[in-house]
Formats: sequence, C-alpha cells, structure tokens
Amino acid sequence: MTNDKPIRSNMGYSTADRVVVQGHDLVADLLGKLDLGSMAFLELTGRIPKTSEATMFNALLVTLVEHGMTPQAITSRLIYMSAPEALQAAVAAGLCGMGSMFGGGAEAAARMLQEGEQKSPANIVDEYRSAGSPVPGLGHPVHKPVDPRTVKLFELAKETGFDGKHVAKLQAISVDAMQRTDRILPINATGAIGAIMTEMGFDWRLCRAVSVIARAAGLVGHIAEELRNPIAPALWKRVDREVTQGAIDGPPDEQVLGSD
Amino acid sequence: MTNDKPIRSNMGYSTADRVVVQGHDLVADLLGKLDLGSMAFLELTGRIPKTSEATMFNALLVTLVEHGMTPQAITSRLIYMSAPEALQAAVAAGLCGMGSMFGGGAEAAARMLQEGEQKSPANIVDEYRSAGSPVPGLGHPVHKPVDPRTVKLFELAKETGFDGKHVAKLQAISVDAMQRTDRILPINATGAIGAIMTEMGFDWRLCRAVSVIARAAGLVGHIAEELRNPIAPALWKRVDREVTQGAIDGPPDEQVLGSD
Amino acid sequence: MTNDKPIRSNMGYSTADRVVVQGHDLVADLLGKLDLGSMAFLELTGRIPKTSEATMFNALLVTLVEHGMTPQAITSRLIYMSAPEALQAAVAAGLCGMGSMFGGGAEAAARMLQEGEQKSPANIVDEYRSAGSPVPGLGHPVHKPVDPRTVKLFELAKETGFDGKHVAKLQAISVDAMQRTDRILPINATGAIGAIMTEMGFDWRLCRAVSVIARAAGLVGHIAEELRNPIAPALWKRVDREVTQGAIDGPPDEQVLGSD
Amino acid sequence: MTNDKPIRSNMGYSTADRVVVQGHDLVADLLGKLDLGSMAFLELTGRIPKTSEATMFNALLVTLVEHGMTPQAITSRLIYMSAPEALQAAVAAGLCGMGSMFGGGAEAAARMLQEGEQKSPANIVDEYRSAGSPVPGLGHPVHKPVDPRTVKLFELAKETGFDGKHVAKLQAISVDAMQRTDRILPINATGAIGAIMTEMGFDWRLCRAVSVIARAAGLVGHIAEELRNPIAPALWKRVDREVTQGAIDGPPDEQVLGSD
Repeated sequence: MTNDKPIRSNMGYSTADRVVVQGHDLVADLLGKLDLGSMAFLELTGRIPKTSEATMFNALLVTLVEHGMTPQAITSRLIYMSAPEALQAAVAAGLCGMGSMFGGGAEAAARMLQEGEQKSPANIVDEYRSAGSPVPGLGHPVHKPVDPRTVKLFELAKETGFDGKHVAKLQAISVDAMQRTDRILPINATGAIGAIMTEMGFDWRLCRAVSVIARAAGLVGHIAEELRNPIAPALWKRVDREVTQGAIDGPPDEQVLGSD
Repeated sequence: MTNDKPIRSNMGYSTADRVVVQGHDLVADLLGKLDLGSMAFLELTGRIPKTSEATMFNALLVTLVEHGMTPQAITSRLIYMSAPEALQAAVAAGLCGMGSMFGGGAEAAARMLQEGEQKSPANIVDEYRSAGSPVPGLGHPVHKPVDPRTVKLFELAKETGFDGKHVAKLQAISVDAMQRTDRILPINATGAIGAIMTEMGFDWRLCRAVSVIARAAGLVGHIAEELRNPIAPALWKRVDREVTQGAIDGPPDEQVLGSD
Repeated sequence: MTNDKPIRSNMGYSTADRVVVQGHDLVADLLGKLDLGSMAFLELTGRIPKTSEATMFNALLVTLVEHGMTPQAITSRLIYMSAPEALQAAVAAGLCGMGSMFGGGAEAAARMLQEGEQKSPANIVDEYRSAGSPVPGLGHPVHKPVDPRTVKLFELAKETGFDGKHVAKLQAISVDAMQRTDRILPINATGAIGAIMTEMGFDWRLCRAVSVIARAAGLVGHIAEELRNPIAPALWKRVDREVTQGAIDGPPDEQVLGSD
Repeated sequence: MTNDKPIRSNMGYSTADRVVVQGHDLVADLLGKLDLGSMAFLELTGRIPKTSEATMFNALLVTLVEHGMTPQAITSRLIYMSAPEALQAAVAAGLCGMGSMFGGGAEAAARMLQEGEQKSPANIVDEYRSAGSPVPGLGHPVHKPVDPRTVKLFELAKETGFDGKHVAKLQAISVDAMQRTDRILPINATGAIGAIMTEMGFDWRLCRAVSVIARAAGLVGHIAEELRNPIAPALWKRVDREVTQGAIDGPPDEQVLGSD
C-alpha cells in the first residue's frame, strides 16, 4: 500500500478547533457571511464568488428549485409516505429523476455552446436538423411565445456582466432555428441557464449538478407540504383502484415475449 | 374517481406567461431578489424570510454543506465513477447516507427540546441516562473542549434574535450532563442547529431536511473535484486488492448460518 | 496505514482463471446448478442451501416480488420516464420505499419472535396493546378473513420442515389477539415470512433484505411493462393538471410558519 | 378526468381471497413451484419460462450477483453504516452505480447484435474501430486469455438451445477483432450474457435490468457480511485520515475557476 499515489482532496477537513472548507476557516470566514448559493459556488469552483457572481448564481439556482407537481415531486412524496423514517431517501429517490428528460436541458445547451465554440449558429442548427434532433435550450410546451424566466435571467446577466458572446450566440441560434423551421422556438429557461453558466466559466458537466442542488431544496419543500397536507395516499389509492378494476374487467391483451 | 377528494398543493404551477411558487410570481418577486437559502426557507415554510431569518437560516445551511471525506462523499465519488452519465444518481446515493448516524443529530436535539418542552433540563438528562443513551446534541469526537461552530452559531442567534429559551435550555442540559457525568459534553454544531431551528419555529421532522439540502451542495462539490482530480479509482483499487489478497491468503473463518 | 487492521471479506474475488464466490468456484460449482434464490441464500448465509431450504426460501422471495401498482412501482415508472438512460436509478428510487410502511412487516414480526423468545404469546400481545401499537404480522386490509398466501406458506413450511416453534408461537399470538380484541387478525403474508425466516435461522435484520431482493425483480418488471405500455406520462399529466387547476381556482389557505 | 385514457397494467392485483400476478394465481400457480429467477422471467416477459429458459436465465442471473469488493458493494456498506435503519436505501445507493461503467456491458453487446442484425461481423468491427471505441463484450482486464464464465455460459446455451446465430456472430466479431488488432479480445461474461439474452428474445434495454436484479442480491449479501464483520468504519477512517493529513501538510495547488 505504501507505493500507492496518496489520496488528496481540497474539499475540507477538521481539527480540534477548526473546520476548514476549501482552504477557508468555516467559522471565521464563511458562517454569517455566505449564503447557501455562494457556498455552493465555493464548493463547485474552489473560490468565494464576487458579488456579481453570487447574484447571478443564486438567480440560476432559484429558477430551478420548484416546478410544481413534477414526477420528481410525486416520487419524493410517495417514498416519504412509504418510509417516513428515511426522509433523506425520499429526496434521493426524487433526485434520481433529474436525468435527460428533466435535468438535462441546461447541460445540453451548455455543451452545444462549449463544444461548438468554433462553429457558426447556422452550422449548429444545421447539425441538429440533419440529425433530426431538437436544438437544446429552445422552445417550451407551456411558456409561449416567450419564457418569462429567460427574459429575467438575461436582464440579470446584463446587470452582472454575464451577457457575453455565449448568450449572444444562443440568441442567434434561436433566431436561425425559428427562421428555418417556421416554428416558435424562443430560448427557454434551461437554455438561458446553460448559456449563462458558460459565460461564468462552468464546464457543461456541472450544469446538471446545479439543477440537482436546487431541486434538492424543492423536493424537501414538497415533503414539508406532504407533512402538513398529505396527497400521496390519495394518489396511490386512485391509481391502484383504477388498475385493479381494469385488470378485473379484463387484462390488456399484450403480446408476450416468444409465447407459445 | 369523481367522488375523490381533490389533490391540492400550494407549491407551484405554471401558465403560459407565469411561473408561480408558493403564491409568488417567480420572475417578478423572487429571481434576483432571493438567495438559495431564502428560497429554501420559502419552500419549507410557505413564506419569504425576514432579513434576520434569512441570515440565520443561511448560516445553518452553510454549516452543514461540507464535512470533508465523509462516507457520503466517498459514495458519491464511487457512484459517479461507475455511472458518470447519471450525476443525479451519484448525489442521490450519497444523500441516502444522511440517516441516523450522520444527518440525525440536529433532528434528535430538536425533538428532545420540542417534545420535552414541559420537562426540566435535569429531567431530560435523567431520562437519557436511565435509558443508557447519549444526550443528543452534546459532545464531539474531534472538536474538544468546544465546538467552534456552536460558538459562532449562538453569536449569530443572538444577533438575529433567535437566542431564546430553547437555546438556553440546551445550554442548561449541557451543564447538567457535564456535572453529572464528569465528561466534557459541550453543545456540538448539530445540537446548536436543532436548538436554533426550534427557536425559528421548525418542526423537528424538518431538521434532517435542512441537512439534506445543504449536503446536496456538498456532494456536488465532491463530484466537481472528482472531475478535476479523481480519487475514486485509486480508492476502489486499493480496497479490492487488499480484500483479494486477504482472501487468497486465507479467507476468514466466519461462522455461517446453521451450517452442518 | 501499515498499522491498520486489514480489511477482509469472504464475499468473493477474481483471478485470471477463476471467479470465487463465498469460497465456491462460480463456474465449476454454481453456474447451471443454483437458481437465483439459492444464490441469494448463499450470499446471505455463506453456504449453499439444502433442497428444503432452497424450496422454502424461493417461495418467500416469490411471495414478495409483485404487489401490483404500489407506491414503489409508480415511483420506478416515473423515474424511468424522467431518466431512461439510468434504469438502475429508477429501480433504486422505487426500492427506497421499502421502509417501515411497506418492507417492514416481516422484519417487525421476526424481531418480535426473536427478541421475545422468553415471553409467552399473551405477554407479547399485552405489551403491544399497552403501547397502543398493532401486533406485527397480523391483519390485512384486503385479505380477509384469511390471507391466502399465509396458508400456502405454512403448508410449504410443513413440507420443508420449517413449521417449528416460532410458527406455532405466531399462531398462538394471532389467536390471543383475536380473542382479546374481538377483531379479525389472521397472520398476514409478512407475518408468515417473519416466522418462517426465524425458523430458518435468519437474524430479523435480514428480513427487510429479502424483501428488497424480491422487489428489485418486481420493479424491473414494472419498468419492462412501462417500456411496452407507458402509464407514467398519463399519471403525471393528470396530477399536474389537477393541482394546477386547483391552484388557479384558489390555493388552499394553509397556515404558514410564524407568518406575520 | 373522465376523458382520460384509462391506466391499465397487467402486472398484478389483489382481491380478498386472491393475489394475481401476470394473470396467474400467486398461491395456486406460483408459490412453491417457481424459483426467484423464473419469477423474474415471468415479470419481464409476461409468461412462465420453459425449463430450458429457467435454467439459462438463472445462470445469467447467478453470474451477475457477486463480483467482490466493487464500488457498488463499498457504497452499500458505507451507506448502511450511515443509516442502518434504512437498509433498503443502502442497497439502492449501491444499485445507482450499475451504470455505463459496470452494468452496461451486456446492454451494449446486445444492442450491437440487435441493431446490427443486417451487418456482417467485419462491418461491425470496422464501425467501432473508426469511431475509436472498443467493441462491446470483448476483452477483460483480469480474465485472460479467456473468461471462464463465457465458456460455461456458452456450454449451458448449447444444452438449453440458446447457442444460435447471435452467439455465433459475437464469436465471429471476437475473431475478427483479434485478427485486426493483434490483441487478445475474447468474449467476456457480459458479452456472453448480451448474446444469450438476444437469443432468448430480450430487448437490449432489459439487459441492464437483469444485472440490477442480480446485483440487488449481491449487495444485500455484502450488507449481511457487514452486519457480522463491519469493514466500512475502518475504510472511512483510513480515507479521512489520509485526506486530512494531506490537507494539513499542504493542500494541492489546483487551478480554480476564473480565480483572480
């Protein structure tokens, strides 16, 4: 074992009279001075944010906390009902759903901007169109013709100095895509977040991370409401009753695998 | 289905031009105005915090974000190595460990204070001693003779008006326990958090929730470091090699169940 | 590091030409000879089951695989819809719900029998009644007046030689509880499983483990059906629409924490 | 709600005197007759396996149960130490790691065979080589020059009638890849599993599902050993001590994001 490369980390450690986080004394330098969003920035980047960064980063996080009764929120409520002694597992179960269909929008938009830095907006739109894929970060099923969060996030980006070339490029991509498809494809909130995180210097791999942090707060909120006003039992009973009645009335004639 | 009690929630919803969270317009009222800690307060309580509440609540959260190379952090790193396409599941896996041994301290201290509101400090200490259980929120294996985070959190509680009767009672419990056991049992950080959350009006069931929110940020931080500086592969290989060598040299003679 | 106690495990390891599991050569001794239930027995106990043990243990597992549209099944379907690239996380999310309300019945019954080995059935019933708690393993909301699974499991226990004193004691507990409460309290399936696992020599802590193994197969089954016949999208949309409509019509007047 | 398409499922339901699973009476038709592997087959496919299918499918599952001290096993042990009251969450946390790096081998091999049914072995190898990707299902870091599990699984496939064209094609792919790369690239166990599952008629999307079922049993086994012989505390302490000492000696000089 003595020849192994040592395991090193800069995240934090404790001694008898100190807790050190990212090289900072937690008690002397961080407690009472940093809000949670700024602390998350410190954890992700290794340094304390400037005021403009703290404002922008908190706004990105706040955007992602709560989206109503999502599959993730329903999940956390169902699992909390099933195992109330393990609240942490109920949040974890909901977070498992922050994948490609829900937590992946900002990631995909940031990746497009970061990996396509040398490409023109038109080239990028072409590539997605020939692959038959939607362009990340554009369009929204509910928020039409504009996503109101995008407008506000870009305003804040302007105020904090993060409305640079990547934001401009995503706007050009949106215009190009709309012209060529004749569809309404405004930049949605996750697209805006992906562009602004790119301006702030974040690797696209960390966009999903930011949505996971924010949504943890949101799912805990749903569990807190479930404590006061449970809806999981009613939801479960409805589904179970409908499925049971349907199965008794006559099960679906599904094809089964290689049945003889 | 028509006779079912309707499912209602106050968490949030979207229309074409608005996103509403807890009755507030996300864009007009929250974005750029609230930090993530204040947003978490809104999610848990249904209202926007006052300045003093925002300061205190953020400090509690910041305390809980990062504790170095905990089992939870090691877990998130190992799972991220195993399934890098599902960062959310790596955070979820780590959060599963915020249970009785790690995330339960503040919860246990707050429960003691909330359920024991009619009991004296001496009675409470007696009850734990006769049950042979440690008093929640007291003592720390590393931080001796005082936990520096407790000192700071109580200072902030004083500044924000949350140093009331529950904080005083936990201090009396600490003094009583030390006098009777002759051991050094200062209030630790999770004890302080449980007492202050009780002052702020939170149900003890939500103390673990607060640690889950904070630790989500911490675990994401570990994954971000793992991206730059991976340690999971080395850790896994060391353990695997040691176990394999030990098994080849001679497996442990364990007793097996009802073997014949 | 050199002075640390070495880390040892008997679970398994690999060399260039062998895979060893619990001291057995996987290829020569297990593949094609053991079914999955017997392999699980080997993993839990460290030895290959006798035929009677394999029959009984497989029956316990098969009982626990599928319970229809449970909260766990709904969860796995919702999370699979959200992150289809991470099927493993969808199963994990559902398993998080195998806690006190769903996976805990056999555990509680086995614990009652194992920790109360010196107590009479009447004493045990008394203790639960004075604590105001239901006796574990008795009664069922749907299966009345008898749980058909219990009848079959006890038949199999008789055939395989596992209908010993613990099964008899749980039956006496059921009779005693019915006589004193005047309610119909037959042994339910999880009670039968807890008693039979106690006969087989399993620590009560492993009863929940057995239900987790079985339910993993069940949740995977739900995901396979979801692939052919998706119901998660419809379920989510219904709930979201009902909550949104309710919130627009007028949010519930909930009391919020310390609002001013 | 009345106009919604009804939610239907064929998985199972209960009435007062019956439990129905996939159209079968659990008590009359399955308990005592099916082993867990056959029950998993029923859950995945909707029908009871023939004897040859049950033998082959159980062998595939048994192969995947236990791989020694994997990242998943370490995870389940660490999380069980952290939250022993929630064993289910410890298994769930470990399962979260059955992703592309660990649970994806059989899936990738099966997908290659199913989507490339019209392509020649040489064409398939060419495609992976020009993409600079390894061919799925070939080669193993430990098992050289042959994976002993593959030999056995193909023997069983021959006995049970599942050594058809897909198995032959994967063997041709292996030969072709070895000839052109001059490297030792035998079919590994996950490659064999992917080929045999394709012979059995399974969609490639369900290969990962099968590894999740099997590994649930394996992770529960590790938790059972952890109960008798805990290694998580020692492992955690070693890592924490090494990282703490390293950080005190001097933290790594990492580049931080846009630091000024």
